[in-house]
Order: sequence, then structure tokens, then C-alpha cells
Amino acid sequence: MKTIRVRLKKSAYNIIVGAKIINRLAEFISRLGIGGDAYVITNAAIKNKYSRVLVKALKQSHFALRFKVVPATEKSKSIEMVSAVVKDITRYDRKKRIFIIAFGGGVIGDLAGFIASIYKRGIPYIQVPTTLLAQVDSSIGGKTAVDLIQGKNLLGTFYQPRLVLSDVNVLKTLDLRQVRSGLAEVIKYGIIKDRQLFAYLEKRYKDILAFKTGSLEFIVKRCSEIKAGIIRQDEREEKGIRTILNFGHTIGHAIEAAGGYKRYNHGEAIALGMLAASEISHKLGLIDKGTIKRIENLIRIVGLPTKIRGISIERIIKAHYRDKKFMGYKNRFVLIKGIGKTRIVENIPLVIIREALKGKFNHRIAKL
Amino acid sequence: MKTIRVRLKKSAYNIIVGAKIINRLAEFISRLGIGGDAYVITNAAIKNKYSRVLVKALKQSHFALRFKVVPATEKSKSIEMVSAVVKDITRYDRKKRIFIIAFGGGVIGDLAGFIASIYKRGIPYIQVPTTLLAQVDSSIGGKTAVDLIQGKNLLGTFYQPRLVLSDVNVLKTLDLRQVRSGLAEVIKYGIIKDRQLFAYLEKRYKDILAFKTGSLEFIVKRCSEIKAGIIRQDEREEKGIRTILNFGHTIGHAIEAAGGYKRYNHGEAIALGMLAASEISHKLGLIDKGTIKRIENLIRIVGLPTKIRGISIERIIKAHYRDKKFMGYKNRFVLIKGIGKTRIVENIPLVIIREALKGKFNHRIAKL
Repeated sequence: MKTIRVRLKKSAYNIIVGAKIINRLAEFISRLGIGGDAYVITNAAIKNKYSRVLVKALKQSHFALRFKVVPATEKSKSIEMVSAVVKDITRYDRKKRIFIIAFGGGVIGDLAGFIASIYKRGIPYIQVPTTLLAQVDSSIGGKTAVDLIQGKNLLGTFYQPRLVLSDVNVLKTLDLRQVRSGLAEVIKYGIIKDRQLFAYLEKRYKDILAFKTGSLEFIVKRCSEIKAGIIRQDEREEKGIRTILNFGHTIGHAIEAAGGYKRYNHGEAIALGMLAASEISHKLGLIDKGTIKRIENLIRIVGLPTKIRGISIERIIKAHYRDKKFMGYKNRFVLIKGIGKTRIVENIPLVIIREALKGKFNHRIAKL
Repeated sequence: MKTIRVRLKKSAYNIIVGAKIINRLAEFISRLGIGGDAYVITNAAIKNKYSRVLVKALKQSHFALRFKVVPATEKSKSIEMVSAVVKDITRYDRKKRIFIIAFGGGVIGDLAGFIASIYKRGIPYIQVPTTLLAQVDSSIGGKTAVDLIQGKNLLGTFYQPRLVLSDVNVLKTLDLRQVRSGLAEVIKYGIIKDRQLFAYLEKRYKDILAFKTGSLEFIVKRCSEIKAGIIRQDEREEKGIRTILNFGHTIGHAIEAAGGYKRYNHGEAIALGMLAASEISHKLGLIDKGTIKRIENLIRIVGLPTKIRGISIERIIKAHYRDKKFMGYKNRFVLIKGIGKTRIVENIPLVIIREALKGKFNHRIAKL
């Protein structure tokens, strides 16, 4: 077990990473002194698997708890769901010492965090992420959000959890596609900040895909450390430091959106986005062909896509221009100067983006 | 014209108080460098009266603007309205340099501030309060909120405006009942923090009720200074300093709620709440009868109620226990040790609250 301290200007909290530590949740919560009534937002599958261990752990320490099950789909990240959940919370909130536990993947974490941030102008919440993606990325850093029809994550807040508990044992019941989706973000951390992590992935990716505890613990811990370090310097994405976490996300989001959020999941789209960003970096003379090959190779061997299928380049370009990260009339890309080194470049001409994307299509599709 | 600087840990902004300064709005906004697209949330009456001057002022300085009219009732402070307004904002938000102007009373300010705080995790907003209550209280301090059926202000954030512009000339079109409602909060500032302000009100209340520019400017300026000073020390109500602003509000909110938010407006209920809190202060030996008389006299001469009518004491007590300021199993009152001096007391026995309230009823009603 490893504890990572996230020190922020006005607050600090721990990320605890380990195996089979969910049953110790009550012990960690007790130390926070945040209240006795736990409101657990989760989905049906997670509840079925873990409610017994959670109930046992919390009730032993005299916590009361109530589960709120929401569908395990992006549709739960809606303002209507916020409304429904807060109404349920008011019914439970009698003793006025309530806190929220976000027990699930990114959707649950984003929704629960947003609700915690606006209910009574902020009540405490705890992240217990259950997917690799959530453990290495979305549960850390305090970005909360729900979607509008007009775009994803259009409503949200910056609101830090009081604790993140990442139990890697929980990951062992995930299907491979979900783990791979999380791995895309792990690869991202290697590319933007840590060439040793990148090399580790090249060497040990099979252990991860075989759910070996040690490897899972290592990558979750390392990614948590990296993200915590970045958040510490730029909690609200005001200084351009946190921006590097968006490597691969500018085009990645566009690919996700252009595929109607169905064709590719987040990690798959980010993998493709990272390849596009690498290609742009190469075209601007920042990296050589060899570096692209190395990145492409790692993405391929972990089982993530390296070619875009079934979406036209024009739809991606169009989605790109709608993205909220496209500020004013400028675009803004996180590029790389090598593995572990980033560079932010604005106003990349559309012709270069288009060229970089073209090579990422299967020949047949690229003509569309 | 007077500028009050609100210095907070992570930000600072100005409150500008003056007469006929709305036409200079563009000049003040330009200095902030927050964008070129103004989204003005307002109500029909305000828009009818001031849209021409606003449009002229802003367009001269090359701001684009769009008005969003919402009903001038508490019902606009709903999650459904948030949803409707943000959808409208996404349609306008093309160039991605949008900011919000809250142009109206407390309802508009609370709604617009909340929306600004959650849209894209926070966009800039400006308060242009048009009621006395909003100018002296709700526009300052960054408390934003919408209501749930289960209670008022149950959803909200702490989110500071980038500018507050209080034009006292706008107050001259208010009806007397609205001005009196605002005066209740002005009296509150005198009682909790400034005996000179209290004495000023005793002497000059007729000038205020006659809408004399100098008096209006003086009280708005003084109250803004006092509130800014308190916010500076305790932005998020974490240190018990901001708490004193709740003087009269514990019972006041209960009276408002027990009257179904119809019988008494906010200021009237707060006036009655301040009398109840003064009575409790006296019963605990903190102030003498003379101080109560002085407070009661000022409340009476400005035209605010001093007796509760048409609501039973039991309904008030019941509403009191539902109030969100009633933390855990404890109650918590802001009491006074004299005019200008507060003291916070917890766990006041119900029998004392009941006794204090009893004297505030007309004899006939008290028996209910």
C-alpha cells in the first residue's frame, strides 16, 4: 500500500493505492472527521459485487450508509440526474453530517463530485474508483462534470475529493477492453512526463493485461504521483501546466465525438489522438520517425487501435472545431519533443492537422 | 463614486458604488479583459427600463450582447431554469469569450452567479444589482444558489464576481416595500458591526425613504465595505466570521418559510428575526431592555414589521428545525452584546426561543 499526498493551496488529501484495501475504507474515512452518513453513488454491477464488503466495513465503524444506483452509462452525467440524486439526498440528509462516496468509474466520479460540489455549496466526497481509467486519471484532480446535449462536460466545477482510494484488486473483474482504455492514459503519462514509465510499459505490458497485482499497483501509483504533481502546481488549469494532461485529447475528443461516443471508447480515441499529436510533432520537426514508431508500437501491443476506421476525416475536423478546448479562434495542441517532454503549440494550420490525420486512416476509409 | 476593493486569497475585485454609473459599465468591464460577448441575465421590467442604456454603453465599446429574460420570481432559481439558460448560452457561445452580467435583484444574481460558476467549470460574471437588498447584500460575497422543492438555496457554490456595479439611481424606481426590505439588511449591518451606521439610520431614515441620492450612496457604500471586510476574512464561511451576517436570519428564515414565502418578504422576515434574536440576547443577559427598544424603534420607523401576524409559533419552530443552518443536532444563533457587537451562541434551549418568539406575536395570534 502506498499513500500519495496531494498538497494544494487551500487543502490537501491522500490518494491511497493498494490491493484489497476496500475493506479498510472506514478506517481511512474516520481519520477525516467528515461525518457519519455515507451516501454511496454507484452502479448496479459494482453494488452487486461490493455492497456486502462496503456495508460491513462501514457499519462496523458506525457509519450509516445509503446506496444510490445510477445507470453505468454516460447518460447518467446529465443535469436531470443531478436533480434526481440531490432530491434523494435531501430525503436522507437529516442529521446534516452527510458525505458522498463516488464508487465506480469516471461517470460516477464526475457526477458524484459535481453533486458534492454544489449541494449546500459543497459537502465532502470520497473517490473509490473502480476502473483503471478512473484510478489513474479521472478520480484525481477535482474536475467534476455533467454533459449537455450540446457537448460533454459543459457543466462542472473544480472540487477536490477528501480522499481517493484505489484498490487495484477491483480492476481484476474488468474486461480487457476497459483495461486497455485505461492503459491509453497510462501510456500518456509516460509520453508526457516519465520515460521510465514508458519503458516499463514496453517491458511489462503483458503482466498488466494478465492483471498481475504488482504491475497494476505500480502503474496506478506512478500515474497518481504524476497527476498529483501536476495538479499541485496548477489546480484550476490556469497556468498552462495542467494543460499537458490533454496530450492526445484535442484530436482524441474529436474522434470520440465524430464516432458518436460509440465507435471508440475514451482510451481508444485518446490512443488515436496521441498518434495524431505525435505525427504533428514530427511534422513540426519536434520528434523523429523513430519516436513515433516507438509510441505506435506500444499502443499496438497493448491492443489499442492505431488506425481510424469508419469515421471520415471531415467529421473529425468538424468535431475538433466544436470542442471546448478550441479557445477563441485559436487551436492549441500539446505536442512532444521526445518521450517525457512536452511542448504546447498554438495556431497549428489546419493543413498540418489534416495531413497528420490522413496517415492514420485505413487507405480505403481515408478517401471518404 | 466610490470603489471598494475586495481582496481575497486567490482573487480580488471591485465594488463600484455611485449614481448614474450604469452608462459607464463598458469602461469598467474593458479593464477586466474578460471577453467581448456579454450574456445579460435579467427580468422583463429591468430590460424594458435599461436595455437601451446598456446596449448603447456596451456596443460603443464593441461588446456584443444578448439578453436572457427570466421571470422576476423566486421560481427562476430552479435547476430547470439553470438547464434552460445554459442551453441558451451554448447557442450564443461561439467565439468562446463569453461572460455573464447578472442584471437584477437577488434572484437574478443568485441564478446568474450559479450558472457562471458551473458553465465550463466557471466563466467570469459581473453583478449589476438593481434592488437595495442586492446592492447591500446578495451581490457581494460570491454566494450563488438555486432552490430545490425541499428547501431554498440547497444547491449553490462560492464563486466570486469579477465586478459589482451598484448604481443607486436605479433604486429610485423601486417601490417602498422593496426599499424597506433592503433596509432590514442595512439595519443588520449597523447592529452587528457599526453603531455609527445605526445612528445614521435613526437620524436620516427619511432621506433614504425619500430616495435621496446622497443617503442611498452612503448606505450602499458603507454596507459594501462592511460585507467586503467580512468576506475578506472568511470567504467560504469556514471560520465562523462570516456567520455574523446571519444575525436575524435563523428565526427570519423560519418565519419566511412558515409564511410560505408569501406573507413576509426577506427583509420583513429578517426584521422580525432580528427582534427575536435581540430578545434572546436579552434573556441571556447580553443586552438590556433599552437596546431592544432602540432596535425595535428603528425597525418600526422605517416601516418594517415588529409583530408577527398570521403565522403560528409552532410552524415557525418547525421550520426552524428544518433550516439548513441548524447543524447536526445543535442550533446556533448570532446574538448581540450591544449595538455593533456580536456573539455566537450554540444550543439555545427551545424554551428560550419559544419565550422570545411569544412576545413578538399579536396577542390574539399567539394563542394559535
